[in-house]
Amino acid sequence: MKIAVAGVGAMGGRYAYALYTSGQDVTLIDQWVPHVKAIREHGYQINLNGEDICANMPVYFPQEVLEAGTEFELVILYVNALQLEGMLQAILPIVTNPKTYVLCMLNGMGHETVIEKYVPITNILLGNTMWTGGLVGPGKIKLSGNGTADFRELHPDGKEMALKTVDVLNTAGLNAKYTENVFYQIYKKASLNGATNALCTLLEANLHAFGSTNAAAAIVRPILEEYAAVAAAENIHLDVDEQMAVLEQRVYDPVNGIGTHFPSMYQNLIAQGRLTEVDCINGIVAEKGARYGISTPYNAFITKLIHCKEEILKITKEEYL
Amino acid sequence: MKIAVAGVGAMGGRYAYALYTSGQDVTLIDQWVPHVKAIREHGYQINLNGEDICANMPVYFPQEVLEAGTEFELVILYVNALQLEGMLQAILPIVTNPKTYVLCMLNGMGHETVIEKYVPITNILLGNTMWTGGLVGPGKIKLSGNGTADFRELHPDGKEMALKTVDVLNTAGLNAKYTENVFYQIYKKASLNGATNALCTLLEANLHAFGSTNAAAAIVRPILEEYAAVAAAENIHLDVDEQMAVLEQRVYDPVNGIGTHFPSMYQNLIAQGRLTEVDCINGIVAEKGARYGISTPYNAFITKLIHCKEEILKITKEEYL
Repeated sequence: MKIAVAGVGAMGGRYAYALYTSGQDVTLIDQWVPHVKAIREHGYQINLNGEDICANMPVYFPQEVLEAGTEFELVILYVNALQLEGMLQAILPIVTNPKTYVLCMLNGMGHETVIEKYVPITNILLGNTMWTGGLVGPGKIKLSGNGTADFRELHPDGKEMALKTVDVLNTAGLNAKYTENVFYQIYKKASLNGATNALCTLLEANLHAFGSTNAAAAIVRPILEEYAAVAAAENIHLDVDEQMAVLEQRVYDPVNGIGTHFPSMYQNLIAQGRLTEVDCINGIVAEKGARYGISTPYNAFITKLIHCKEEILKITKEEYL
Repeated sequence: MKIAVAGVGAMGGRYAYALYTSGQDVTLIDQWVPHVKAIREHGYQINLNGEDICANMPVYFPQEVLEAGTEFELVILYVNALQLEGMLQAILPIVTNPKTYVLCMLNGMGHETVIEKYVPITNILLGNTMWTGGLVGPGKIKLSGNGTADFRELHPDGKEMALKTVDVLNTAGLNAKYTENVFYQIYKKASLNGATNALCTLLEANLHAFGSTNAAAAIVRPILEEYAAVAAAENIHLDVDEQMAVLEQRVYDPVNGIGTHFPSMYQNLIAQGRLTEVDCINGIVAEKGARYGISTPYNAFITKLIHCKEEILKITKEEYL
């Protein structure tokens, strides 16, 4: 399958590399200049479960997409949520090809409303992933642990491609699953993320260090309760106790889970000095809460604290993009 | 006046030095071994508004208080809130002298309930201070800016001593004022503190850096509103708009206010690796809220986040004391 991965940081890089080694025709697209230059000069350098690997995949800046051709069967979007709209606009010739499907598994919620502005709903696949990854520096990522990829089509016309994509990802070892209730899956993932990601960032802790404090359970529960209340207003049942158990058994676990992982906002804000996607993770809960008349002080507060930290670190969109 | 200052970190040191230079007979008491040793060997080293000063005041460990004598007219308590009860127990022979008055101006609220367990209410003076100070290291502090000291007696029998102490502090340039409504003053100070201290700690920012973010106003207002709601349940009127104005005009201001100051919890937790007094600043609002049936999610959340950070940094009471 001819696949483009738009945004090849740690997560996009993981998917691209897995698909590439399973024999797919993979093209990388990224806007970060030092990253693209490093991949071109030295290949994409990946530390995969401790082993150093170098993969030679073609890489393009968004403005060069016409050189890469526009005949992709699948475009996997793995940009930071803040760059989603900019990337779609930049690679419009690719994503508007009527034969091209777009798969989005970004952190957070609400990305489909952005994508639908540029891509016909028949061509959108939406889901989420429990894989993780860390950016080491330009052209270098570090991958460990296990994960899953759950997604489906947004419109019945996309079902065949959704099933085909599940197969392609599974052949690449990405643990893909066709999921009926994708918005439930997205809520589940976003709430785990929303309960921990911003706080690990503010507290400068990995998931295990945060989760193993006595304070953690009392901190995350009211955040999850706000997700559940907002989800209920959209007829989605999110079980807070079940989510608490997932946090304990998988998210915080440093051995069998992703406990050693520093979540995405930590990586963006603290490690890389970039703006965060907090608006798509916690902010959207506060927004939905305001719309539905549901009180969401915790998610609102967390969102403001992260924006405050961005300001204290003097990070602006302009400086980053 | 024969005065003991119990707890001579930056704040206690400021008061002790000011009183000493104005001619009072000042004795220092502190339990931090390197601090006491440094003061004994090199004198108390103070950088006062940029000028280096060395003051030779007698200093004792709490367990040595009998050597210092028990005939103090005034004991000023300036320990960290967490050490208050331990210090009172350790210097019991001093504070239980019926001729000795105890002045407490610690950050936060509720200290009088601890002090009343050891000192007759007739002998307690209570208030707060807007002076600041920073500990540089053992035996060394740095002082700048201006402040005030507002206090009164808790029982009519203490009024004469309260007025006398105001005079003594004013002679020492400490801007003291007899305050009728001390609990209102304490609420005012604690709420300014509660709105900023813990957040500057979590965000690792000084008051100016925090206060000059766009997010700050929306962050601090609901915290102040919780203080006001709890104060109202105790028949104290705290004006949120007025408090917001004090933050803008005095607390955040780096030139005419204390904007360059890193608040006490930052100094304790981040700079010195010590436990914080968050329970006496934000935790007590959540406690009072629970008692009065008032919702206090922000103060409750802030308290838990600080305790979480203490745990992440693996700071325990045992290691510190």
